[in-house]
Amino acid sequence: MAADPRFFEVTGPHSLAVIAEVAGGRFEGDGGRLFAGIGSLPSATPDQVSFLDNRRYVDALETTRAGAVVVDEAMLERVPAGCVPIVAKQPAIGFARVALLFHPPAPRRPGIHPTAVIGEGASIGEGTEIGPYAVVGEGASIGPDSLVEPHAVVGRGVVLGARARIHNHASITHTIAGDDVVLHPGARVGNEGFGFTTDPASGRYVTMPQLGRVVLGDGVEVGANVTIDRGASLDTEIGAGTRIDNLVQIGHNVRTGQGCVLVAQVGISGSSTLGDHVVLAGQAGVAGHLTIGSGARIGAQAGVMKDVAPGMDVAGLPAKPARDHWREVAALRRIAGNGPLTRMETAGAPSAAAGRNDRKQGRD
Amino acid sequence: MAADPRFFEVTGPHSLAVIAEVAGGRFEGDGGRLFAGIGSLPSATPDQVSFLDNRRYVDALETTRAGAVVVDEAMLERVPAGCVPIVAKQPAIGFARVALLFHPPAPRRPGIHPTAVIGEGASIGEGTEIGPYAVVGEGASIGPDSLVEPHAVVGRGVVLGARARIHNHASITHTIAGDDVVLHPGARVGNEGFGFTTDPASGRYVTMPQLGRVVLGDGVEVGANVTIDRGASLDTEIGAGTRIDNLVQIGHNVRTGQGCVLVAQVGISGSSTLGDHVVLAGQAGVAGHLTIGSGARIGAQAGVMKDVAPGMDVAGLPAKPARDHWREVAALRRIAGNGPLTRMETAGAPSAAAGRNDRKQGRD
Amino acid sequence: MAADPRFFEVTGPHSLAVIAEVAGGRFEGDGGRLFAGIGSLPSATPDQVSFLDNRRYVDALETTRAGAVVVDEAMLERVPAGCVPIVAKQPAIGFARVALLFHPPAPRRPGIHPTAVIGEGASIGEGTEIGPYAVVGEGASIGPDSLVEPHAVVGRGVVLGARARIHNHASITHTIAGDDVVLHPGARVGNEGFGFTTDPASGRYVTMPQLGRVVLGDGVEVGANVTIDRGASLDTEIGAGTRIDNLVQIGHNVRTGQGCVLVAQVGISGSSTLGDHVVLAGQAGVAGHLTIGSGARIGAQAGVMKDVAPGMDVAGLPAKPARDHWREVAALRRIAGNGPLTRMETAGAPSAAAGRNDRKQGRD
Repeated sequence: MAADPRFFEVTGPHSLAVIAEVAGGRFEGDGGRLFAGIGSLPSATPDQVSFLDNRRYVDALETTRAGAVVVDEAMLERVPAGCVPIVAKQPAIGFARVALLFHPPAPRRPGIHPTAVIGEGASIGEGTEIGPYAVVGEGASIGPDSLVEPHAVVGRGVVLGARARIHNHASITHTIAGDDVVLHPGARVGNEGFGFTTDPASGRYVTMPQLGRVVLGDGVEVGANVTIDRGASLDTEIGAGTRIDNLVQIGHNVRTGQGCVLVAQVGISGSSTLGDHVVLAGQAGVAGHLTIGSGARIGAQAGVMKDVAPGMDVAGLPAKPARDHWREVAALRRIAGNGPLTRMETAGAPSAAAGRNDRKQGRD
Repeated sequence: MAADPRFFEVTGPHSLAVIAEVAGGRFEGDGGRLFAGIGSLPSATPDQVSFLDNRRYVDALETTRAGAVVVDEAMLERVPAGCVPIVAKQPAIGFARVALLFHPPAPRRPGIHPTAVIGEGASIGEGTEIGPYAVVGEGASIGPDSLVEPHAVVGRGVVLGARARIHNHASITHTIAGDDVVLHPGARVGNEGFGFTTDPASGRYVTMPQLGRVVLGDGVEVGANVTIDRGASLDTEIGAGTRIDNLVQIGHNVRTGQGCVLVAQVGISGSSTLGDHVVLAGQAGVAGHLTIGSGARIGAQAGVMKDVAPGMDVAGLPAKPARDHWREVAALRRIAGNGPLTRMETAGAPSAAAGRNDRKQGRD
Repeated sequence: MAADPRFFEVTGPHSLAVIAEVAGGRFEGDGGRLFAGIGSLPSATPDQVSFLDNRRYVDALETTRAGAVVVDEAMLERVPAGCVPIVAKQPAIGFARVALLFHPPAPRRPGIHPTAVIGEGASIGEGTEIGPYAVVGEGASIGPDSLVEPHAVVGRGVVLGARARIHNHASITHTIAGDDVVLHPGARVGNEGFGFTTDPASGRYVTMPQLGRVVLGDGVEVGANVTIDRGASLDTEIGAGTRIDNLVQIGHNVRTGQGCVLVAQVGISGSSTLGDHVVLAGQAGVAGHLTIGSGARIGAQAGVMKDVAPGMDVAGLPAKPARDHWREVAALRRIAGNGPLTRMETAGAPSAAAGRNDRKQGRD
């Protein structure tokens, strides 16, 4: 399937030689052969380029009609006749560059839409586009070459670095952000934290002032309809390069290291701390005031109630070492008289699976 | 409780004869008797019509003060004296029609609110209402008799069929939709998928271009604050008639069949495929690259990590056949010395419960 | 860390005597000593006031550089030399008042922004601020001294009492609310419920009319991107003082008592009823048509499929008495041969933990 021109820019055709160079790969044959675009293995046509990254799809490679395919050395012999292999060390990255060659991002239209409301003292960087009905608060600062889509709200005093992308309906307040930060539609950053105490006299809840901020490192991406609360007194901090999927909840005072991956619907309770490159698979939860060490991997739907050591793989409710979890799953099946384990019960530890997906291809 | 006229249209009174005809039911007695509205069994008054669908509420039927009640044959003898039974094959559907008789949807006000921003080349069908601050992108197409509520965003090139209802604050981009599609408030459709790969040189994540679309079949309903990501290369496809409850996450390249039911807070990871009429109960999760067969029912909070065969009932973490799951729940209770099972531990399999609720009454 | 003046009001300095009086505490020494602000124990400087509420942080107390600290009697001897103890019965509440002394809420700017759209017959109370691009429907009523932030939508006929705070991008329809109600960004209140039935003729789903409302008691707070559906025939009711964290889902016809605490990502299915002061920890789920008694505490990620008695502590999937749950966790570990329990598996019941956090400090 070619990218739909109603939604994406289209360039080309481009020659095999150019494509291979962009992909950082080598090929044999006619470098002048022209290609019209890219496609997935099952749907690509002879005038399209495809790629294989996930071995799960090697069958699709062997039957693809694509005219060329970006693969690594090991997959070479699986490439069908009539399909030109472009051999690259990092097929996924190579293909990503080829995709951008054919489909560059839509050009920004620098300037402020007449319907946008810009607060006093706000500064907008050069080359930045502010869309219809965007609201930028007093004294806010948005770096150069940024995009603020329709209906986005950037609160009073907020600082966004260069090349920020604030998608439609996202709102961000009480936040200091680095460069290359992305907020997907409906993301809510800087909300008042869920902090209160009970007044024994009245029995009523009294809100604890939430006087901290959110600090987003360079390259942080925040998914659609995510919620990140600002700190109570310290800041809520998201480390550089961290990727947050849709509908994730991050409580006040949470701190994550660099390059963490939080898959959809994960929840991290207040004041917990993650090291670098921690991976939480979908729907996992972390209780409050915990420490998760660098490189730890938390399985899908795991419920973490204790600190997790660096590099540890955990799974289950309550979360425990994944190895123990799967041993317990097997033991329980046995004592229940449910017979030998079938494929369904012996799935690879979810954290491992999640790790693989996240590192390679996100949820794809 | 009568419907609040501040929020709903009110017509009537209507005669028993008209009401029974609309309900597709038969009755005995004075067809000229007038009714003022509808009500629930516990709250309905003698001038109101009610209905019984869920046997769980048969006690409420026997004590209702409603003047008439839509029921099926089997419930006839439970209808109290002084309440006219309207006997219908499908009481729920009959009652739905009677409710619409008394409370039709608010009339649309065809036209474009002066504050709406309509992009170049966008086409708006006849009889369609575009509300305040709605933004419709360039070349977008919205079918006739549609409603776009305040602050909704319809992206560049998006295609919506006839009778679309895009509620306040919903946003939809990169999407081709059929007729009768509904987006509830804050729904996010067409977001960039969570796809990236690691550059071994820098250790940084590199985004994989997300060049697919979202395709919504006729009659698809998308709940409040739901997130549906567009495909990476193939499309994300939601089959006709599928109902998606609030806060559900659907990853890129997911495909669902027709008439699936995804209850609130469900998450489906990228590239998984659902057959027709699959039911996922609340908070269930499905890992990536899996296939769930038609008619399968996934229990509440189940964590699916393997393919599920058509018609299968699964539950638990990891998900397994519901029968096995409940046997394991019982066995574990036994070996823990927790004594005989009580009602709490022997609840019907959540998937079954969910199935009943979903098919009949959603989460009601 | 002092509160960032870009985001928060700043007053002061204030004297120790004034601070102690506001905190409702007693102190010894120079009441004229001036303090510049507040800080957390680890970061506070000698010119700042801090507090200790959670014993988990007593080490931080013993090493703090804060000039004064609000503590209870029991912590007195842990206060380091050079730090003035302000002894209060309720340190958290005392500190909250001190925080408001230094950082009062930003003053409202009564009036309606020229870009706001106010429907016919809508009434706006005195002292209320309506922000840019807010939309207030026909006949809606907003009480005095309220704040409606940019892009908020208040639907036709909605009633909000005094001192309402509707944050950016929140939308509320079909709702009658008391005083002091707060909607955080992106909250969706009054959505059409997930109710439908299957037409056996066509096999299609038919929507059941959702003709109820949402009723919010005084002081209810609704978190960011939360979804609360309106009733089908009865109302959805949220009891006074109930606090709802981010990304929570509440189905149609749900009723909660007073002072309930619903932590992030909780889901409550339609027609279930909660008593007073029920606590649901993060990601817990409640099936439909259930009754949860007053004071019950539901553990993190618990899956409730049966009624829960008042005051009961439950955990696990399916949810059972927490005591039984933890016994089962231990037994399973034993039979799996995973050796003696470690800290990780013997974490206190999540509901208890949640209870402590929620009651004291929310998720902080």
